[in-house]
Amino acid sequence: MDDVGALGLARVERTKSVLQWVDIAIIVGNAQDFDHYEEDLIHEAIQLGTPTILALNKASLYPASSTFLDKIHTLGLPFVQTDAQDRLGVDDLRQAIITLAADHIPKDRLLVGDLVGAGDTVVLVTPIDTGAPKGRLILPQVQAIRELLDAHAKCFVVQQDKVSECLNELRNPPKLVMADSQVIMDVAAQTPENIPLTTFSIQMAYSKSDVIAMAEGTAALASLQDGDRVLICETCSHHPQKDDIGRVKIPRWLRQKTGKNLEIEVAVGKDFPIDLSPYKVLIQCGGCVV
Amino acid sequence: MDDVGALGLARVERTKSVLQWVDIAIIVGNAQDFDHYEEDLIHEAIQLGTPTILALNKASLYPASSTFLDKIHTLGLPFVQTDAQDRLGVDDLRQAIITLAADHIPKDRLLVGDLVGAGDTVVLVTPIDTGAPKGRLILPQVQAIRELLDAHAKCFVVQQDKVSECLNELRNPPKLVMADSQVIMDVAAQTPENIPLTTFSIQMAYSKSDVIAMAEGTAALASLQDGDRVLICETCSHHPQKDDIGRVKIPRWLRQKTGKNLEIEVAVGKDFPIDLSPYKVLIQCGGCVV
Repeated sequence: MDDVGALGLARVERTKSVLQWVDIAIIVGNAQDFDHYEEDLIHEAIQLGTPTILALNKASLYPASSTFLDKIHTLGLPFVQTDAQDRLGVDDLRQAIITLAADHIPKDRLLVGDLVGAGDTVVLVTPIDTGAPKGRLILPQVQAIRELLDAHAKCFVVQQDKVSECLNELRNPPKLVMADSQVIMDVAAQTPENIPLTTFSIQMAYSKSDVIAMAEGTAALASLQDGDRVLICETCSHHPQKDDIGRVKIPRWLRQKTGKNLEIEVAVGKDFPIDLSPYKVLIQCGGCVV
Repeated sequence: MDDVGALGLARVERTKSVLQWVDIAIIVGNAQDFDHYEEDLIHEAIQLGTPTILALNKASLYPASSTFLDKIHTLGLPFVQTDAQDRLGVDDLRQAIITLAADHIPKDRLLVGDLVGAGDTVVLVTPIDTGAPKGRLILPQVQAIRELLDAHAKCFVVQQDKVSECLNELRNPPKLVMADSQVIMDVAAQTPENIPLTTFSIQMAYSKSDVIAMAEGTAALASLQDGDRVLICETCSHHPQKDDIGRVKIPRWLRQKTGKNLEIEVAVGKDFPIDLSPYKVLIQCGGCVV
């Protein structure tokens, strides 16, 4: 961190705000220029519970004294002595990152594989639209099939025009029907009420986030009033498309469903406002890609 | 072609032999140094029926006279004037290659999609072994599912331990069971005689070659005698593995099955002998990857 002057201070503030959402922090200092800035940052990381590694760089140039190392030890952080120039300790740093990641980064839940047991039958409904890659399936479809095979379940894959035919062909109702959300209305019409029905999108939310909290959030949309501010947090990294989901479709659906005159804003990437209190609802778009 | 001297002549011969199996030939000459070597090569390509484009390169340096272009026209080949240095005509050459490829390179047959009709049920048996990519399916499995979906067939995907369960679950027998060849004996034991059974490998052969000729070739193995020479043509581009299919497994199987004392040789890539007459059988290994 360039921590001198007004701009330096702003940089320090920005770094500290970033500490709140990074998966792992690597604080790089050196034995020569280690002062209260580094110490503050380390204390902040510890307070926030951010998994942190301290890299004492320039170790060949400024070897750490045993007094200094004792002080570092008391911080209770994993630390590595490195030297970027002669690549000293770089492998140790890599190993420290791997260890920290394995211990601290929560794994995604499965898409669907943990909802079934060996021998269960699951119907996957996978329309082949013009966006489907030539001769391939899209990744969530392949992932779902693989998880079901790993669970030793039986996986019946069909397009949406064959759902009732497929259900009639089975002697027993499937454990679950999982359909691409773009054909869900069609699939719902073909699926008896007693068979659980879900979408790839819902399962993606189940895999990557707290689907109960998301359902509560969805229910909260009904309470929106005229003039309420809604922030769409766009996580997706690709360029906005025509009829973009985050910028066009979700605002349109929100206005249609609520019938309210909403103030809808879009924030991109991690740069959403520090003060979220003016917003009645936050909607994350593109969480499937992160 | 460096066509001068003894080595040059050898190069010319080699180029001509390559002409027999290339998909598309691009003969590069220029208006200044165009002589009987280029003409011979062009006539040879025409005679062999090799789809050929003539690139008249160095066009900026040696512009072609109208007399020369008239002569080129009479050859009846698509030709493009290019200059590699200033990139003149490079896009035209690309377009000519695309056009020629679209017209002349035969498409692979489908793996399985053309053997079924809308509504047919196919059982795919896809073991998940240690070689399976994490969270994914291997490509032929994905291709097969996609082709079946494209055909609006119903695709029942299971591991080998669920085949009879899967068949019992269906009210009607499937049109086809298609299993990974490593589990075919197990799957065959679970599949009633009246249900057609095939492997991914057989379907790959069906897709990429003349499966009837291959079946005849397989039958011919029974006629091998002691001392017969067999050539294994290794097409695969990866490094030979321990227990390599082409170098270890196929020779072992051949000797076991025939009980004969065979002379088995391996030729790699395109470099198999010009004279194939000493061989009783040629076996291509790795055709799945080309």
